[in-house]
Amino acid sequence: MSTQGPSPALFFETISAYQRTEALRAAVDLDLFTHLGAGPRTAAELAVACGASSRGVRILADYLVIIGFLIKQGDVYELTPDSKVFLDRKSPAYVGDATRFLLLPDLRESFSRLTEAAKKGGTALSGEGTVSDDNPVWVEFARAMAPLMRMPAQLLANLVGSDPDRPLRVLDVAAGHGVFGITIAERNPRAHVTALDWRNVLAVAQENADRAGVADRYALLPGSAFDVDWGGPYDVVLLTNFLHHFDVPTCERLAVKAHEALAPGGRALTLDFIPEPDRVTPPATAGFALVMLATTPRGDAYTFAEYQDVFARAGFARSEFHALPPTAQQVVASYKS
Amino acid sequence: MSTQGPSPALFFETISAYQRTEALRAAVDLDLFTHLGAGPRTAAELAVACGASSRGVRILADYLVIIGFLIKQGDVYELTPDSKVFLDRKSPAYVGDATRFLLLPDLRESFSRLTEAAKKGGTALSGEGTVSDDNPVWVEFARAMAPLMRMPAQLLANLVGSDPDRPLRVLDVAAGHGVFGITIAERNPRAHVTALDWRNVLAVAQENADRAGVADRYALLPGSAFDVDWGGPYDVVLLTNFLHHFDVPTCERLAVKAHEALAPGGRALTLDFIPEPDRVTPPATAGFALVMLATTPRGDAYTFAEYQDVFARAGFARSEFHALPPTAQQVVASYKS
Repeated sequence: MSTQGPSPALFFETISAYQRTEALRAAVDLDLFTHLGAGPRTAAELAVACGASSRGVRILADYLVIIGFLIKQGDVYELTPDSKVFLDRKSPAYVGDATRFLLLPDLRESFSRLTEAAKKGGTALSGEGTVSDDNPVWVEFARAMAPLMRMPAQLLANLVGSDPDRPLRVLDVAAGHGVFGITIAERNPRAHVTALDWRNVLAVAQENADRAGVADRYALLPGSAFDVDWGGPYDVVLLTNFLHHFDVPTCERLAVKAHEALAPGGRALTLDFIPEPDRVTPPATAGFALVMLATTPRGDAYTFAEYQDVFARAGFARSEFHALPPTAQQVVASYKS
Repeated sequence: MSTQGPSPALFFETISAYQRTEALRAAVDLDLFTHLGAGPRTAAELAVACGASSRGVRILADYLVIIGFLIKQGDVYELTPDSKVFLDRKSPAYVGDATRFLLLPDLRESFSRLTEAAKKGGTALSGEGTVSDDNPVWVEFARAMAPLMRMPAQLLANLVGSDPDRPLRVLDVAAGHGVFGITIAERNPRAHVTALDWRNVLAVAQENADRAGVADRYALLPGSAFDVDWGGPYDVVLLTNFLHHFDVPTCERLAVKAHEALAPGGRALTLDFIPEPDRVTPPATAGFALVMLATTPRGDAYTFAEYQDVFARAGFARSEFHALPPTAQQVVASYKS
């Protein structure tokens, strides 16, 4: 479309954006990317591999070319470099299973009721939304999202640093898949990680710790982060993708618990979606606030200034901001002393 | 996100694309754009106007900034030029009501079953999908989509031309809202338009003809385009956004009926989504094929070469291609002689 003069192109594109989601999901369901991983294919060849119709695969694959997931040369389709890395099931960085969590019916429903959420100022789902006690959504999360967290976990581990001679006591709050704590344990041979989460979720973290070969330095602390004693003292308390679910006073309660559990000189590392003060940049970071409006009663994408205040009120001496390019996430490092 | 190195950014963005759809729908539901039409507003002011919560409106409005529908200066939101024209209910070009059609539950369901459609090679909805006889979806379509069709209708009328002294007999097949035929009638004082569609849909076309002041040159031909006698002879037969619903043999049957109904020297004008032979450009045009896979048994976005063949086999002497910038649609003009 021309960019001259008024145009309803963005309206059309946005109101139909859900079709992109469905096309990607269908392609993952059909394992279309994995079948193309073996090499370029025509629609007819790909259809046989996917157990689908040639016509259906042709139209779907053309659409995937249009939205940037495939390349078409003549009538032959092939994977883009990103699709090769992230969407071929044979790739170690395969993320296709994350569709299971990212498109759970509860999440979809919360967005289909977004008008209601905007009126109310919080999720239209009953009760606490996705942050209700023991919501099975988090077991699904732990299983589905681990592959997508490997890159941010590596970047967070860079911030922690590694010293082969120094013991490092780490508490991973709301550990989920455990990938953040486990990555630190892999880098620091004398690190000991305690993973706190609901018991059913911790089963997934334990599997991942076993697989990473750090099980002998991995302890489980089952329960709600609000109710259990966090123990300690720890050198590092991880708050990864957790505080965004709550309002400011609740974040402060958690920051106080972190402060109490830290050893002198220790720090809390908050990995989250932390937009600029304008709350609209960077786009992929700032846009996360809408997920919190749709799915939680009072969650948000807090700015660094807001996190600074939370941790200062909880007694921390100072906080630092770290971007984690190329991810859409950031870290606040808050020092006890 | 960085564009260097492999990145799952496109995966994330696409799997969450449905959130853009829901945000836009929520904003239209709340009439947020109309309330901003009166001038820049803070979230708190806008919330009062929309009858929503300040927090909910702040998060939603920030998201609308991120996806390009609003501008934010400090903590004040205002409309973009396009939003002013198309999303303020007070604008004559308001298109917000089109969300009713574009997000009908049947359409959404057809896309949620896209994997099944790809396997089958056609809609997973029962029977004929949206092209079933007398499907009430088309009354909704006629009411909701008219505003979005005004620009293509003007461009199509340009192709027809206007000669104040010459009679012009027009058949508008599957007229729907009637906007295409009505626009030609407005431009040509001696034009007479016959609108063919199911009776319930024609009620909407008649309303629009009355409103445009062309009712005395407007006739209704109720029924199925496949079953009724098209009458004639006509100088122009309009096939707008119609052939894409069907397979090639069915398009050919309709082209034969058009040929029979045309006077010598007459032409059929097919306005549709007509991609380049690569079927992936222009993107907004080529992407329409997916809507046909999801919602119809055998519909498609046909290329010009395919339409040329259809009309040649139906007896037409020749066909011409016309792009309709800035819209995503194109026209094939097929001459009887």
